[in-house]
Amino acid sequence: MGSPGRLHELGRVAIEEPRLLSRALAHLDNVQVAAQLDTMEIGAQDLVLHALGVARRPSVLEHMRLESAASIVARIAPDDAAAILEELELDDITDILQQLEPERLRELLSRFNPEDIEEVEELLTYDPATAGGLMTPETVSVRDEATVAEALRTVQQKDELPDQVFYVYVVDEDERLVGVTSLRILVTRNPDLPVREVMRTSLVSVTVDTDQEEVAHIVSRYDVVSVPVVDSQGSLLGVVTVDDVVDVLREEATEDILKMAGAGEAITDTQTFGTSFRARLPWLMGAAFGGLLVAISLSRFEEALRTVPVLALFMPVVAGMGGNVGTQSSTIVVRGLAVGYVNREMLRSLVLREVSLGALLGVVTGLSVSAAAATLGFEGIETLPLVGVLTGGLVGSMTIAAGVGAGIPLVLERMQIDPAVATGPFVTTAVDVLGLLFYFGLATVLLEMPG
Amino acid sequence: MGSPGRLHELGRVAIEEPRLLSRALAHLDNVQVAAQLDTMEIGAQDLVLHALGVARRPSVLEHMRLESAASIVARIAPDDAAAILEELELDDITDILQQLEPERLRELLSRFNPEDIEEVEELLTYDPATAGGLMTPETVSVRDEATVAEALRTVQQKDELPDQVFYVYVVDEDERLVGVTSLRILVTRNPDLPVREVMRTSLVSVTVDTDQEEVAHIVSRYDVVSVPVVDSQGSLLGVVTVDDVVDVLREEATEDILKMAGAGEAITDTQTFGTSFRARLPWLMGAAFGGLLVAISLSRFEEALRTVPVLALFMPVVAGMGGNVGTQSSTIVVRGLAVGYVNREMLRSLVLREVSLGALLGVVTGLSVSAAAATLGFEGIETLPLVGVLTGGLVGSMTIAAGVGAGIPLVLERMQIDPAVATGPFVTTAVDVLGLLFYFGLATVLLEMPG
Repeated sequence: MGSPGRLHELGRVAIEEPRLLSRALAHLDNVQVAAQLDTMEIGAQDLVLHALGVARRPSVLEHMRLESAASIVARIAPDDAAAILEELELDDITDILQQLEPERLRELLSRFNPEDIEEVEELLTYDPATAGGLMTPETVSVRDEATVAEALRTVQQKDELPDQVFYVYVVDEDERLVGVTSLRILVTRNPDLPVREVMRTSLVSVTVDTDQEEVAHIVSRYDVVSVPVVDSQGSLLGVVTVDDVVDVLREEATEDILKMAGAGEAITDTQTFGTSFRARLPWLMGAAFGGLLVAISLSRFEEALRTVPVLALFMPVVAGMGGNVGTQSSTIVVRGLAVGYVNREMLRSLVLREVSLGALLGVVTGLSVSAAAATLGFEGIETLPLVGVLTGGLVGSMTIAAGVGAGIPLVLERMQIDPAVATGPFVTTAVDVLGLLFYFGLATVLLEMPG
Repeated sequence: MGSPGRLHELGRVAIEEPRLLSRALAHLDNVQVAAQLDTMEIGAQDLVLHALGVARRPSVLEHMRLESAASIVARIAPDDAAAILEELELDDITDILQQLEPERLRELLSRFNPEDIEEVEELLTYDPATAGGLMTPETVSVRDEATVAEALRTVQQKDELPDQVFYVYVVDEDERLVGVTSLRILVTRNPDLPVREVMRTSLVSVTVDTDQEEVAHIVSRYDVVSVPVVDSQGSLLGVVTVDDVVDVLREEATEDILKMAGAGEAITDTQTFGTSFRARLPWLMGAAFGGLLVAISLSRFEEALRTVPVLALFMPVVAGMGGNVGTQSSTIVVRGLAVGYVNREMLRSLVLREVSLGALLGVVTGLSVSAAAATLGFEGIETLPLVGVLTGGLVGSMTIAAGVGAGIPLVLERMQIDPAVATGPFVTTAVDVLGLLFYFGLATVLLEMPG
């Protein structure tokens, strides 16, 4: 902690002052080293890994981002990679292996202890975005008939338990999960009592194919540090621990944010030029053809534009304000659906509320902007029509946008389409078309022009 | 779990079939009841709370959303409210009290046990968005000189420990935090060893004023289930447990998403008409005056618009596509900064990459849309100029937008302004002004019109 600031930049030290690298590493803990490796060039990464020594490598790798850790495992000598991986917990091993090419995966797996191979292969069969993909089979379970003292001895004998195991699960004679207790309960109760009498029987479990978002939801609602995973017979297969859930929460939030902007589903989608291009193109292509639709639907107003070209100057503010309100409404609904603040019963009142909010916000911003525009004066239009068209256009566009913005994600949700993905381009196009048609329609009426 | 589906809707049962309410409640666990209360009307909420009975109320309240729990505590009889609160953990009590009017807070506090009052008052002095605001003082610490057996006895004697305490912290003679161990270590090691020899000394701690986002970052990086909070002398004051961190992560993600859309900072900002109006108006007002700026800067092209009004039809697609790319770029940068994927060293290459991506995406979407537009044909413009102006306009607008979208959050970050809040309106306005100026400028050159 008291180390000089310059030593903190491992990447720079590795390249420019390699002799100082060991000293720099001694000043940082494994997590700090991991965080720096995550954003380091490959060349410097290799130098740091080499200087790190065999003992620290597994723990550093464990705390790196999955993609960065996997790229290292894919790059270094297979024997070294296998040696590092075997020190990690089974769920972390599986996560990293899952990122590798099949060939590399087999190459590494063949170097594992035979007993580990089977468990890893089993875990590899699960979808990474499910409880099966997140769980580790390393957990402690005891029979319900065991005494507290026997249960305690079981815990004491398991010497390779991961740090994150805090609960002791209780199973019946058919290995079915029937309860849970904790080490703290075991050390405070009468050692001769059967575990059955000190366990809690109301516990939530998930199955291997429960979606990771649902697992995260359960952990966050129930305030537990791990969730047991059971098979269809109710037998305990493993646990998902809270550290994995924390990662899921960060990942899902990022995913929702990026999806709403049409910028891919994960930060990794945005890391190389090619993946970023591919992640963003479909969304933009959709929006571009939406824009063409806007041009087509407005073409009937070409004559009106020739007569009063000043109308075109306010198209961006009319469309843009609609877009802003539409985005706000859809964001509130999409996020509300994601975190469970919005439920089916509220839908109608929610859309109604958004529409009236959009109208009110339209009146306030419309009057303010028209007043300012009237003060400035624009060529080719009188003050009164200007205020009327601009205020009316903004109110109309923003009201429509609020309804569309709140409504589209609800419709998509009902059609089982992920609202975070599809809402953006639909809302933008619909708002532009409807808002601008309203604006020009209003203008032709107010200015008594041919429509 | 096997209960009939209709009984799950507590709100409906409470109002329509009150006699079935107790049976419905018996089928649901406290967390399920809490989740339903969160989205229930006040009238039904009161019926459910009444039917719930004294024993279940604290645990149900503990699992409710903070705002819903606080609104119940503010509403029911002070004696009942104080009785429920006193059953909760100190950090949860404080969180709820912090939501109340000062008068109500004092009224409830005066009903607490004298010993609790002091601790709660101490906790109330901390900012809720800091480690001090999240921590609970209920934790276990032992002296480094104690033996393993003595440490174990300390744990056994603390009977009111919250469930989420899994670590045992070790302090020196001056109460300074020097290490950490766990119950699992204590039950597996030689009881006569001093704790000093079984503790881990490399541990991360935070101070009371560490921001909650930083605390969440530490928990997620270090994979711990609680973080100790120390004062400036390094003395242990309490711990922040992972269940609170999970809540922080959800809250911060929602906050970032809403802020980027200018829709407030929390879902609560969007719940009533008035708060939602106030949260959204400033952002929209900024965007509206930005739109006026756009109109002013385009007014020099009024003559060009009168000559070739078809130019106006493509303004929405030019501005809109710029807006889309700008949002994608700014989202990637804002989220990248928030989760730490973007660091200072990458800034220049990141902006460069976004600009070239924007240009390439502009070429691809521009050529596609122009080809389609040329096939359709538009009145008042030849095919070749149409393709040239439209493709050129999209490439220019999208390139500028990518640069502006990636650059503005980086500039705001450097000026210590939260990029999630301020990026939106700036990017929209800048993209509209610059993109459309480029488009019209290009058109006047290609169509040899007066500029």
